Amino acid sequence: MTAIQFTDRSTVELIKTDFADEWPVLAARTSTLGAKSTPEEREGLIDCLIRERHGVPFEHMHISYRVTTPIFVWRQIVKHRAGVSLSEESGRYRELEPEFYVLPPSRPVSQTGKPMAYQFEQGDDNQFMTACAAQASAGSFCWYLYENQLKMGIAREVARMVLPLNTMSTGILTFNARSLMHFLQLRTEAAGSHPQFEIARVAEQLAVHPASAAPITFESFIKHGSIAP
Amino acid sequence: MTAIQFTDRSTVELIKTDFADEWPVLAARTSTLGAKSTPEEREGLIDCLIRERHGVPFEHMHISYRVTTPIFVWRQIVKHRAGVSLSEESGRYRELEPEFYVLPPSRPVSQTGKPMAYQFEQGDDNQFMTACAAQASAGSFCWYLYENQLKMGIAREVARMVLPLNTMSTGILTFNARSLMHFLQLRTEAAGSHPQFEIARVAEQLAVHPASAAPITFESFIKHGSIAP
Amino acid sequence: MTAIQFTDRSTVELIKTDFADEWPVLAARTSTLGAKSTPEEREGLIDCLIRERHGVPFEHMHISYRVTTPIFVWRQIVKHRAGVSLSEESGRYRELEPEFYVLPPSRPVSQTGKPMAYQFEQGDDNQFMTACAAQASAGSFCWYLYENQLKMGIAREVARMVLPLNTMSTGILTFNARSLMHFLQLRTEAAGSHPQFEIARVAEQLAVHPASAAPITFESFIKHGSIAP
Amino acid sequence: MTAIQFTDRSTVELIKTDFADEWPVLAARTSTLGAKSTPEEREGLIDCLIRERHGVPFEHMHISYRVTTPIFVWRQIVKHRAGVSLSEESGRYRELEPEFYVLPPSRPVSQTGKPMAYQFEQGDDNQFMTACAAQASAGSFCWYLYENQLKMGIAREVARMVLPLNTMSTGILTFNARSLMHFLQLRTEAAGSHPQFEIARVAEQLAVHPASAAPITFESFIKHGSIAP
Repeated sequence: MTAIQFTDRSTVELIKTDFADEWPVLAARTSTLGAKSTPEEREGLIDCLIRERHGVPFEHMHISYRVTTPIFVWRQIVKHRAGVSLSEESGRYRELEPEFYVLPPSRPVSQTGKPMAYQFEQGDDNQFMTACAAQASAGSFCWYLYENQLKMGIAREVARMVLPLNTMSTGILTFNARSLMHFLQLRTEAAGSHPQFEIARVAEQLAVHPASAAPITFESFIKHGSIAP
Repeated sequence: MTAIQFTDRSTVELIKTDFADEWPVLAARTSTLGAKSTPEEREGLIDCLIRERHGVPFEHMHISYRVTTPIFVWRQIVKHRAGVSLSEESGRYRELEPEFYVLPPSRPVSQTGKPMAYQFEQGDDNQFMTACAAQASAGSFCWYLYENQLKMGIAREVARMVLPLNTMSTGILTFNARSLMHFLQLRTEAAGSHPQFEIARVAEQLAVHPASAAPITFESFIKHGSIAP
Repeated sequence: MTAIQFTDRSTVELIKTDFADEWPVLAARTSTLGAKSTPEEREGLIDCLIRERHGVPFEHMHISYRVTTPIFVWRQIVKHRAGVSLSEESGRYRELEPEFYVLPPSRPVSQTGKPMAYQFEQGDDNQFMTACAAQASAGSFCWYLYENQLKMGIAREVARMVLPLNTMSTGILTFNARSLMHFLQLRTEAAGSHPQFEIARVAEQLAVHPASAAPITFESFIKHGSIAP
Repeated sequence: MTAIQFTDRSTVELIKTDFADEWPVLAARTSTLGAKSTPEEREGLIDCLIRERHGVPFEHMHISYRVTTPIFVWRQIVKHRAGVSLSEESGRYRELEPEFYVLPPSRPVSQTGKPMAYQFEQGDDNQFMTACAAQASAGSFCWYLYENQLKMGIAREVARMVLPLNTMSTGILTFNARSLMHFLQLRTEAAGSHPQFEIARVAEQLAVHPASAAPITFESFIKHGSIAP
C-alpha cells in the first residue's frame, strides 16, 4: 500500500513542441518564403495577425504537456474543445495514485459578493486550516474506502466513485498556439477573466515555454491585451 | 440543512427538440422539396445517407435534455466535443445538492481480465454491500466536510473540492442527430463498444425520444449496426 | 436548356429556429426555473453572460437558413467550423443551375492601400462596367462549356470544374446562437472586422430574424460591441 | 504577365512533422514510460487502440503539408473540420498564379448509374479531349478577364470572382494522426468510400510520409480496414 501524499501545487512538464515564430509567418504566406523572412518582417506580420484577429495561421504549431492537477481543475480544462487534445489517465483501467490537493498558504479562501462579481479575500487562519483539514480528511478517508474495495476484488471503475475532486490526476495535453492563447485569455487574469486560483496557476506554467520558443507571437499576444486571435 | 439523498439512477428529461425525418432529407437535397417527399423517398434517401456515412445532413436538427448523473459520468460525457453543447451547474456559483449515487442491484461489481478486454461479473453480496457502503460513507462524510466549510464562510469553489465523484450533478445537454448517433455508438453496447454501466444507462434514455421523433433515421442507424454516419 | 440568369444579391431564407431568450437563461441556471424568470431577470443574466463572455449557454438554440450565394462566398462561410453545419448542393450529384453573380451598383470596386489595411473606393463607371462584363462573360462562356460537356456524356463532377467562382450555389446552413454571434462579429463591420462586401450582405440578412426572436440576447450582443461571448 | 500553366496533378510537399509511434503510446499511458516501451509492447497497444477505436491518443502528433490543388478539391478538403487546420492563399490579398488543372490521361470521364451508386468509365477519346479543352479554355479566357480587371485598377477580391474551379491554389494543411486517418478513410477507396478522383490522388500523397514515420500506427490502420479510430 502506497503512502498517501498531499501537495499544494499542480505540475506542468513539457513533453514536446515545435513552437517557433516562423510557422505562423509561413502559414500566413502559404509559402516557404515565410521561413526566410527577416525578424522585422515576422514581427510586423505577426503583430498584424494578432491585432486583426486572424487566428488560423497560429494553428499549425503545437505543444504537448504532461500535467498533474486535481480532478476539479481537469473538469475546467476539458471545457476547452477546439484545438485541444487531452488524454487523461483512466481510473477504469489503472489503479490511481493516492495524491491529494490541499491549499497553499497564498490561496484566498473567503468569498464575498454576488455570482459573476465575486471578491476573494485571504480569510483568517481558522478558515484556512478548516479547508486544508477537510481536504486532507476527504483524501485519507476516501482513499481508505477505495483501497478497501480493490482488496475485495471490486472493479476499479466502481471503486473510484468514492474519490474526492481534490484527487490529483495526470494527463497529456496538446494545444496549438491559437487554442493555447485562447486558454490563457480565459484562464489567467490578464484579459479580465475570473479563473479559479488553481487553473490560473496551471495556465501560468503553460505560458512559460511558449514565451521563449515563439517570443514575437506571445509578446504580441500580451501587448494586445491577452486576447486570442 | 438539507437531508442527504441517495439514488441508484440517472435522470434524463427532454427539454426540447425539432427532430424529424424531414430535416436530413431537406438538407441532403438543399431544397424545401425535401419536406414534401413521400415516406418511401425519405426512407430510401436516409438509409443511403447512413449506409454511405454521409453524416452532415443529420446535423441540422437538435435535441436538448436536462440530465442528472454522477460527476464520474459527466467526466465521460464531456469527452464528446463535436456537435455537443453542455451547460453543467457550477459549484463555484451555487451551493450543490446533497445527492449521491449508489449502485443499483443489477450493477456488476467484479472485474476480471486485462485492460481493453475486461469481463464484468455480478460479484457476491459482500462485494456489492461493500461498494454501496463506501459510496454512502463517502457521500455522507464529505458532505459534512462541505457544509461545515460553507458555514465557516469558506468559498464554495474551495469547499466543493472535497466532494466525491459519485456526487450527482445536473446539466443541459444538446446534441444534433449526428453527434447523438456517435454518442450512442460509443456509449451503448450495440456497436461493440465497452461503455461503463452508468453512462450506458444514460445513453439508453437519450435514445428513447429520437426513436419516435425521427423513426426512419434511428431505425436505419440501428439496422446498420449502430455506426454513426 | 435553362436560360442563364444573373443576380446581384444573395438570398437568405429562414427554414426553422427555436431562438428565444429563455434558452440561455435555462442553460445558465441548468434549471427549468430559467423559463419562468421575469423579463428583468432574463435581461440581467443575459447581459452578464455576454459581458463576461460566457458563451456556452447560447449554444442550446439553433437557426437554419437556406442560403443562395456565390461560390466565393461559400468559401468564406465554410471557414467557420465550430457550431456551424453546412449542407451545400453538390455538383457531383446534381446538374447545377445557370445563375451567376454580378456586382450591384453600390459595390465599391477600387482598392487602395496595403494588405490588412485596404481602403475601398467606389471606382469609376468604366471599372464597374468592366467588372460586371467580366462576370457576365465568365458565367456565359463557362456555362456553355459546362453544358456542352454534359451533352457529351461527361461526368458532372468533371464538367463542373470549369465553372467560375461567381456561380450561385445553394446550401442549408445551421448555427447555434453563439456561433451565429461569432459569424456576425467577423462578417459584419460592427466589431471592426473587414469582411468582403458580399459576405457582409449575407451576414446582415442572417441577423434579421434573431433580433426579433431573441431580442434581449441580440441587443446585448450589439450593446457590447458585437463581440461574441 | 506570367505565362499560363496547365497541370494534371496536385502537389503535396511535407513541411514538418513529429509523427512517431511513441506518442500514441505515451498518451495512452499518460506516462513517459510510453517512450521507453519495447517495439512489441507498442505494437500491441497501438493495435488495440485502433481496433477498439480509441482515437484520442493519436491526436498528440501532427503533420503539416504545403498542398497545391484545384479550388474544387479545396472545397472538399475544408469539409474536414475536426483536427484539421488550413491556411489557403487568399485572392483578396494577393494576385493569384495562372495555373489551371486539366485531366490526366488516366482520369475516367464517363459517369453512369444513380446518385451514391455511380460507376465511372474511362470514356472515349472525344470525351476526354472535350473535357480537357473546356478546362484549358475556361482557364485561358477567365485568366484574361482577371488580368484585364487588375490592369484597370479593380480590386483583387472583385477580379477573382471570374476564375474557374480548376484554378490551382496553394495552402498549408495540418492534421493530427487521428484526423489524417479520418481523411484517408473518406478520401481514399480503401474503406469503401467513393472519393472524387482528384482528392483521392491528394490523399495518397498525404499517406506516404506517415507510413514511414509512424509505421506501426499506419500499418495497424490499414490492417483494420482503413477505419479511423
